[in-house]
Amino acid sequence: MPQKTIAFTAASHLKSMAFVLVLLTVSTASWAEKRTFEMTIEDTKIMLVDKQAFHTFAFNGQVPAPLIHVKEGDEVTVNVNNLTTLPHTIHWHGLLQRGTWQQDGVPDVTQVAIKPGDSFTYKFVAEPSGTMWYHCHVNVNEHVSMRGMWGPFIVVPKNPKPIEKKVTKDFIMMLSGWDTKWASKPGEGGVPGDVFNYFTINGKAFPDTQPLRVSRGDVIRIRLIGAGELTHAIHIHGHVFKVAFKDGHALPYPYDADTIMVGPGERYDLILTMDNPGRWAIHDHVDVHTVNGTKPMGGVMTVIEYNEINHNDPLYAWKGKQFVPDFYYEESLKKPYGMHDAAVFKGQAIQ
Amino acid sequence: MPQKTIAFTAASHLKSMAFVLVLLTVSTASWAEKRTFEMTIEDTKIMLVDKQAFHTFAFNGQVPAPLIHVKEGDEVTVNVNNLTTLPHTIHWHGLLQRGTWQQDGVPDVTQVAIKPGDSFTYKFVAEPSGTMWYHCHVNVNEHVSMRGMWGPFIVVPKNPKPIEKKVTKDFIMMLSGWDTKWASKPGEGGVPGDVFNYFTINGKAFPDTQPLRVSRGDVIRIRLIGAGELTHAIHIHGHVFKVAFKDGHALPYPYDADTIMVGPGERYDLILTMDNPGRWAIHDHVDVHTVNGTKPMGGVMTVIEYNEINHNDPLYAWKGKQFVPDFYYEESLKKPYGMHDAAVFKGQAIQ
Amino acid sequence: MPQKTIAFTAASHLKSMAFVLVLLTVSTASWAEKRTFEMTIEDTKIMLVDKQAFHTFAFNGQVPAPLIHVKEGDEVTVNVNNLTTLPHTIHWHGLLQRGTWQQDGVPDVTQVAIKPGDSFTYKFVAEPSGTMWYHCHVNVNEHVSMRGMWGPFIVVPKNPKPIEKKVTKDFIMMLSGWDTKWASKPGEGGVPGDVFNYFTINGKAFPDTQPLRVSRGDVIRIRLIGAGELTHAIHIHGHVFKVAFKDGHALPYPYDADTIMVGPGERYDLILTMDNPGRWAIHDHVDVHTVNGTKPMGGVMTVIEYNEINHNDPLYAWKGKQFVPDFYYEESLKKPYGMHDAAVFKGQAIQ
Repeated sequence: MPQKTIAFTAASHLKSMAFVLVLLTVSTASWAEKRTFEMTIEDTKIMLVDKQAFHTFAFNGQVPAPLIHVKEGDEVTVNVNNLTTLPHTIHWHGLLQRGTWQQDGVPDVTQVAIKPGDSFTYKFVAEPSGTMWYHCHVNVNEHVSMRGMWGPFIVVPKNPKPIEKKVTKDFIMMLSGWDTKWASKPGEGGVPGDVFNYFTINGKAFPDTQPLRVSRGDVIRIRLIGAGELTHAIHIHGHVFKVAFKDGHALPYPYDADTIMVGPGERYDLILTMDNPGRWAIHDHVDVHTVNGTKPMGGVMTVIEYNEINHNDPLYAWKGKQFVPDFYYEESLKKPYGMHDAAVFKGQAIQ
Repeated sequence: MPQKTIAFTAASHLKSMAFVLVLLTVSTASWAEKRTFEMTIEDTKIMLVDKQAFHTFAFNGQVPAPLIHVKEGDEVTVNVNNLTTLPHTIHWHGLLQRGTWQQDGVPDVTQVAIKPGDSFTYKFVAEPSGTMWYHCHVNVNEHVSMRGMWGPFIVVPKNPKPIEKKVTKDFIMMLSGWDTKWASKPGEGGVPGDVFNYFTINGKAFPDTQPLRVSRGDVIRIRLIGAGELTHAIHIHGHVFKVAFKDGHALPYPYDADTIMVGPGERYDLILTMDNPGRWAIHDHVDVHTVNGTKPMGGVMTVIEYNEINHNDPLYAWKGKQFVPDFYYEESLKKPYGMHDAAVFKGQAIQ
Repeated sequence: MPQKTIAFTAASHLKSMAFVLVLLTVSTASWAEKRTFEMTIEDTKIMLVDKQAFHTFAFNGQVPAPLIHVKEGDEVTVNVNNLTTLPHTIHWHGLLQRGTWQQDGVPDVTQVAIKPGDSFTYKFVAEPSGTMWYHCHVNVNEHVSMRGMWGPFIVVPKNPKPIEKKVTKDFIMMLSGWDTKWASKPGEGGVPGDVFNYFTINGKAFPDTQPLRVSRGDVIRIRLIGAGELTHAIHIHGHVFKVAFKDGHALPYPYDADTIMVGPGERYDLILTMDNPGRWAIHDHVDVHTVNGTKPMGGVMTVIEYNEINHNDPLYAWKGKQFVPDFYYEESLKKPYGMHDAAVFKGQAIQ
């Protein structure tokens, strides 16, 4: 673990240490860093689309939660304050917690859940690298499935794979479903028989999602995260993508596809070259996931917009749409490593 | 694009052109062809099984739609006439539409939907090769999920993979589900809470499906297409298959399996050798997908029948069954390239 | 087929037989064995969790059914007695039945179903190797989906793969769902519209599942079997696993993951090294599969318990829990090859 190595280096000048080990130590120490983040959990109203509100327990008041973007080996500390009226934890899905199992965030297994008004500090090393995520682990059938308690946790590899070195634009899509019967009944719902009737990317349903703006020649990476309890069949028009990473881990042989099933908890990183200027739909091929309530042509749907093509074509559903560039975290991902709140995902506090 | 290359060749005798380029041009020109197809969309009643009717919007009055079978690089023109009372489009799922994004068939993104009584001409190059399909892209939750608006689009590769060269028999299976609550309510349905109660291969439920007739030594290819909105777990008895192609694309390393999950929009091409004479079930392992309404032993189920085995065994559910050889498009696939209607899939016109 | 080879060897001393063939014959004969098992099908009440009973048609009165554990090439005879009031068969899922298609267990295709009170003898060679399973093939929407008619059938390979040679502990998990509306209505249920409200590993829901006890340095194999009709997203905390086998067959290139979708009929063998002492959740990430009825934190959930960590931590939900070591068949798998009933899975006879 890096923190031990660092401590060791600082504490001594062991002359007998092999030169190669010294080198390794220095290298690790200069790469890995310590980072501390503050996180609240708040009763928050978000809008899935148009006037459809939903009561969530939102990390830092936003759904999805803030991006955590760190380097492999970083020592991460997260101070969590539970401002809701129900107990919660945070599980860091995909992170190994090597030597730190009590930081894994599973109530009654690794810790006592954080009571309303209480705090808890998680401390662990960010490994392995890849597309990870974090979510509450209390009453997951409600809190994860339908209260928006999830966010992306991207760990940048020390040794990136050739395929990811070519990437010029990076997008994150967290997929989930909602049953509006429970929209204003926090503490209830997420039970057998629920009828999911809204379906979102990063908490929004079409047409309130945002386009992916690209230019010819871009190599884009789309990090799909199955954040809710449904399975989504994500189809991209006009391109063949490489399925390159599964759950953050490089596949030994990436394969070509145009549709990918993303189940709960899974992550798939797709990499594709923008070589075909146009306006291209991306959507869930589970047909009913493209409704808003009973209204067709909503839900998990968006468009790749090439900058070479007029965005304001009269026939285009999104002509004149206000573009919000951080909707897929692409702006947050360009910031210095750290935790980044995003205005676009902020909800309204519920007192 | 082949059409450009052809035009160029016809228009000039550029002496300075490198010999290799000439060769390439000739080769492409002689391979790729122009094809024009006529397609209607019609209100059509089909029978899922026995007396269970369903109102569909059927391409050329059949469900599934006619096979389109072309060569990689062919220039395809499809004249579509919408004879129904609702707007539609056709999306060519898996085709790249390189340089022709406005032919992609997405309403309010690439075109205005084709109004009732109106026509639209799609024109594009057939690439890449593989098992593709086509479907309406308007109100997909109803039109694709439950009105039968889908058909197979097979693009023959210029350079086939070794594994597919061995194939002696080629079968297409389009999988879907139906909620008979909406059977006679066109323009409605496909909404959250629907209870799918019929499940079909190529629009028919067992026992009204057909056997796959093979002989010992055949190498068969089964092209599975997830045409509806359900996920199917297709299990083949008595054989191990290679999962060889995903969404039309060759997997870098085909793998062995006996059960394959096929989600909405996905295609899997299975290749397997007929080395075990017998009568072998193929069925969906999602158990409830093998009922017709509430009656067990129906739905997504069929049988591989070896010709070496008596088809009229007294115990056999299908003894004396009338064999319809084109049910999996195996006869249509043997015809010259083109678009082929199939009598077995024709429904009854609804005025 | 081994049995033929054996018969041939016993019947003659063909001097002219090539030496290499003799060697092969001897080798096969000494490896493969004949095994005969007795199997009943009984009306049996099992407890999914706490006081939640369910009427099953249980093989040898247990759910899951007894482990069948044989060597590749073994000649297996199973004498089945149907003691229930409904017809049944047994299908040996994944076994090739090479030359024995009439032993495949599909009613009205390979045999007449076994009537109440009747018997049937299945006889076949155990091949190929891997994680296979067996289940009834009559009215699967009820019998397989909700009456517990399934058990594991493990065929040990003659030539194991390097990755499986390292395994020190072997666990089997059969996954399924239940709709308690049908709990006491045998012969009914398993129909469209069912609402699954209990979810189990090996027939039990958390907290009545059992931990996986391991020691640092163990290499464990978890054989996941999709026994019911639901798709499960199995997530393991604190470790990255290799997805090594699919449907019993070695993947050409095992890949890393932390979450795996397991659909109906599918099997995945995960192999992972126990290098991270702690208490680690394993659970279904389909959130609603972790409820018991409407009560959260149940269902498909268990814990890897390292022996290096105190099992009786005051905060731990399972402190003081009585450990039943055969719950994942790990004790049965250590017994000599054969069929093994397991006390932990026995239900209560229904007269």
